[in-house]
Amino acid sequence: MTLNKAWTLASHPTGWVSEENFKLLVSPAPVPKEGEVLVKNLWLSLDPYMRGRMNQQKSYAKGVEIGEVMGGETAGVVLESRHANFKPGDTVTAPSGWQLYCCLKGELLTRVDASKAPLSTFLGCLGMPGRTAYFGMKDICTPMPGETVLVSAASGAVGSVVGQLAKAWGCRAVGIAGGEEKCNYVVKELGFDACVDYKAGKLFENLKAACPQGVDAYFENVGGEILDTVLRLMNLRSRITICGLISEYNSPEPYGIKMFRSILVNRIKVQGMIVFDWLERYAEANQALLDLLSAGKLKYRESVLEGIERAPEGLIGLLKGHNFGKQLIKLA
Amino acid sequence: MTLNKAWTLASHPTGWVSEENFKLLVSPAPVPKEGEVLVKNLWLSLDPYMRGRMNQQKSYAKGVEIGEVMGGETAGVVLESRHANFKPGDTVTAPSGWQLYCCLKGELLTRVDASKAPLSTFLGCLGMPGRTAYFGMKDICTPMPGETVLVSAASGAVGSVVGQLAKAWGCRAVGIAGGEEKCNYVVKELGFDACVDYKAGKLFENLKAACPQGVDAYFENVGGEILDTVLRLMNLRSRITICGLISEYNSPEPYGIKMFRSILVNRIKVQGMIVFDWLERYAEANQALLDLLSAGKLKYRESVLEGIERAPEGLIGLLKGHNFGKQLIKLA
Repeated sequence: MTLNKAWTLASHPTGWVSEENFKLLVSPAPVPKEGEVLVKNLWLSLDPYMRGRMNQQKSYAKGVEIGEVMGGETAGVVLESRHANFKPGDTVTAPSGWQLYCCLKGELLTRVDASKAPLSTFLGCLGMPGRTAYFGMKDICTPMPGETVLVSAASGAVGSVVGQLAKAWGCRAVGIAGGEEKCNYVVKELGFDACVDYKAGKLFENLKAACPQGVDAYFENVGGEILDTVLRLMNLRSRITICGLISEYNSPEPYGIKMFRSILVNRIKVQGMIVFDWLERYAEANQALLDLLSAGKLKYRESVLEGIERAPEGLIGLLKGHNFGKQLIKLA
Repeated sequence: MTLNKAWTLASHPTGWVSEENFKLLVSPAPVPKEGEVLVKNLWLSLDPYMRGRMNQQKSYAKGVEIGEVMGGETAGVVLESRHANFKPGDTVTAPSGWQLYCCLKGELLTRVDASKAPLSTFLGCLGMPGRTAYFGMKDICTPMPGETVLVSAASGAVGSVVGQLAKAWGCRAVGIAGGEEKCNYVVKELGFDACVDYKAGKLFENLKAACPQGVDAYFENVGGEILDTVLRLMNLRSRITICGLISEYNSPEPYGIKMFRSILVNRIKVQGMIVFDWLERYAEANQALLDLLSAGKLKYRESVLEGIERAPEGLIGLLKGHNFGKQLIKLA
């Protein structure tokens, strides 16, 4: 008998997540009902938004309840199908959650063509993080050629795509990342014009030097003190996409943004986003990102842990910035 | 010989403005050169933005320098014209500054028809504050019929127009104002659906009761703790116009906004504005506001001090919220 392993939420964290917040359940693999598809998950994506879902209070979406399987997207292969659109062997992405096997209605699956790119990239630069970067840039940051685009968490799954889109669209791309190794990667591998190490001190001075014409568009993944500092460098009529505020997810006391007046003085447009709002335009983003990848202009890096047992460790590390590139769990 | 009186900046304030920051100069009235018009100012508008211009650091626009006449808009009558478009007796608004007489190039004047509305209203609901309300509402708050529109400083020159536009456009209009008298005026005279007294305590609870469906559009004139509280009540995909942050203008230490994450969680659009960005569409706003006034749907209240000598007192009172309605100085 095939066994499923699934991570459930054992308790709501306060502050930092710990391994005690999770519980691993082992049970027989599920059997598909009419209209359902049995997927064997090969990759699990770990993403910062998962921290919000572990809270009791409202975040983007409904939270995970105690005893429920942790939510998350996987890439896998169809083992058995009772839905007309899928057959065994198809490669798909699916909202399976943190588990090895899952039965889902066919409508919830997305078929992906693993002959065009490695399966795992459909969870990264060709998946939700890539689409997030694409729509946040195109519809909110709206950068013009020659403008300066700044992005925090620049070596991460979303940030790395943001900067490469900025370059592809004729902008100056500047990143913020933690540590010399990540900054070197962002400039030398991803092709950003500059990257500032927020752990090195003198953040304002270093950002000012990296953005001599100020910042026209800022793609925010971090928040807190970094956001407060960047607000001092924003240009007149600049735009800020608020995609994530990871610095706050684990903090019981929110950071107080002191430079809010910059939004008034510089007539800045600030907008919060979640990629699901662009559901009807996913095909546009998928094609643009695949074209860029095929042209060798979309590089990516994966931070892979092997075995579903390591999923909690992976999320905890991601929230602390220990990952380097898109965080994945290799399930099989 | 006709004497001019003009208030100049004597020193940059730190924190609250005081009368010592100003110096009154008396000199002969100026004589127009070719292309100029001599205006006798009848009304001086006092506005919160003037506080920013008294600083040494950058705000919206270039600041006033020590010894310069304080900037500001006036309504007056043409005494002498050396410009083809104006003749003596014409009524105009003009960027004259805080003085009784001014010679300006004709291109800087705006002719207004004082037969359609009292001259002073062209500095208030039919002037810059009215246009600010109109464009901030129409282009940023973008309220739909049935939505809840909240505005701070609701009895003020801008806020009072915001709420009446909300009602005219089929929305629920809720105000925030300081004190029972202002709140009563906002509801009973201006026709808002509700108004919350921020001085009465329990701001969050009272706002929640006044906005049972949450807030879809917020027009911000105040900032600080009021903004932080309102952020907790904003709906999904709501909009915030940042028009002013008067609570911060006199504070040496800015308030830290703790609820910034609401912008992410609720995908809020926040945008700073200054009405000059809509210069090409002033005629649209002027007509819409005049139509509303003519239909009896745009009420206003003026807080008038007599004599140019009282201008510093007027600005200080305005910054402390002592005015009740549009703050004006009657010059003659």
